[in-house]
Amino acid sequence: MKQKTILVGIAGASASGKSLLAETLVEELQSEHLCVISEDSYYKDQGNLSMDERTRTNYDHPDSMDHDLMLEQMIQLKEGTSIEVPLYDYTVHNRRQDTRTIKPARVIIYEGILLFTRPEIREAFDLRFFMDTPLDICLIRRMKRDIISRGRDMDSVIKQYLETVRPMYMQFIEPARQHADLIIPHGGKNRIAIDLIKTKIRNLIK
Amino acid sequence: MKQKTILVGIAGASASGKSLLAETLVEELQSEHLCVISEDSYYKDQGNLSMDERTRTNYDHPDSMDHDLMLEQMIQLKEGTSIEVPLYDYTVHNRRQDTRTIKPARVIIYEGILLFTRPEIREAFDLRFFMDTPLDICLIRRMKRDIISRGRDMDSVIKQYLETVRPMYMQFIEPARQHADLIIPHGGKNRIAIDLIKTKIRNLIK
Repeated sequence: MKQKTILVGIAGASASGKSLLAETLVEELQSEHLCVISEDSYYKDQGNLSMDERTRTNYDHPDSMDHDLMLEQMIQLKEGTSIEVPLYDYTVHNRRQDTRTIKPARVIIYEGILLFTRPEIREAFDLRFFMDTPLDICLIRRMKRDIISRGRDMDSVIKQYLETVRPMYMQFIEPARQHADLIIPHGGKNRIAIDLIKTKIRNLIK
Repeated sequence: MKQKTILVGIAGASASGKSLLAETLVEELQSEHLCVISEDSYYKDQGNLSMDERTRTNYDHPDSMDHDLMLEQMIQLKEGTSIEVPLYDYTVHNRRQDTRTIKPARVIIYEGILLFTRPEIREAFDLRFFMDTPLDICLIRRMKRDIISRGRDMDSVIKQYLETVRPMYMQFIEPARQHADLIIPHGGKNRIAIDLIKTKIRNLIK
């Protein structure tokens, strides 16, 4: 009998270590029965908007996400059907034409800031984790990433942080924390948390 | 080769579900390689105090605990030596004459409010869990336990809560939360948390 697909959600603030945790699990488990999907893949198609309008989108608000499609595809995975996950082109703030095919593996990890905001999506997850990284630590990570790696200037990073990242965290992300099954402190390098989740996933896979 | 003993600490507020979690793990795993020790067993011997003085002890303060003995015995367990855990008689607020012998099992779970306050003890744990139960929910559990099950009156429970339980939580327990490896919401019946920890312990035991 085919085992049903287990959906794991890792939510938490931007730059809290969600994708590091997810990638570490995938890298250390090395299994075809496990894969990761980023919630960012589901940013809405903005083909009907001008470039100027696209840059004004609030990408930290649930309305920026195509959660309808995400939910639909989560249900398809649970039913044993492959899905075509959208790909997003950050340079033009729009969905790409091509997609990424995801087969219904035994365990599929989703990582994203707004995964637990919508009840039907939240309830579709079998395991819900929330990264409990203090906001100042997230900010440091974000500054390093955006300024050093992506060449942005500090003023624009701070402006975006104060205008959307932080208020949206307070309004949508932090309140969804109460729905988590387990809360992970110390970011995506928390060795004990990685080991515990790894052990659980390894047991699900085999 | 004999495997070393793994020490697991479950800390958190009084009535947050620590012992329920620990007992559930023991009951469901049914293994001779696993046992639980309550931090309460290490309340200091008060044979030198009058009964009146004993009732005035602040049992929510680290000074009420014989943490020296606890640490010493944790080290003995790690070294493969059996220990004699004190037994406490709540009716006379004093240590009993007899003890409970604990052999160095593969996994030993400690549960108690002040487990992570002292650095050497905290660091002796291999896994550190913190129960993230809101204080009002803990208070409801405490009221039910103390008033309904133990026949105390509401005024005395609230007086003790405001005078020692709550201030000691703020001063000692909550600050130690930052040292936890994983934070467990929703109390001792959190099924996902129980399953994750069970899977880890089962893997350690076999």
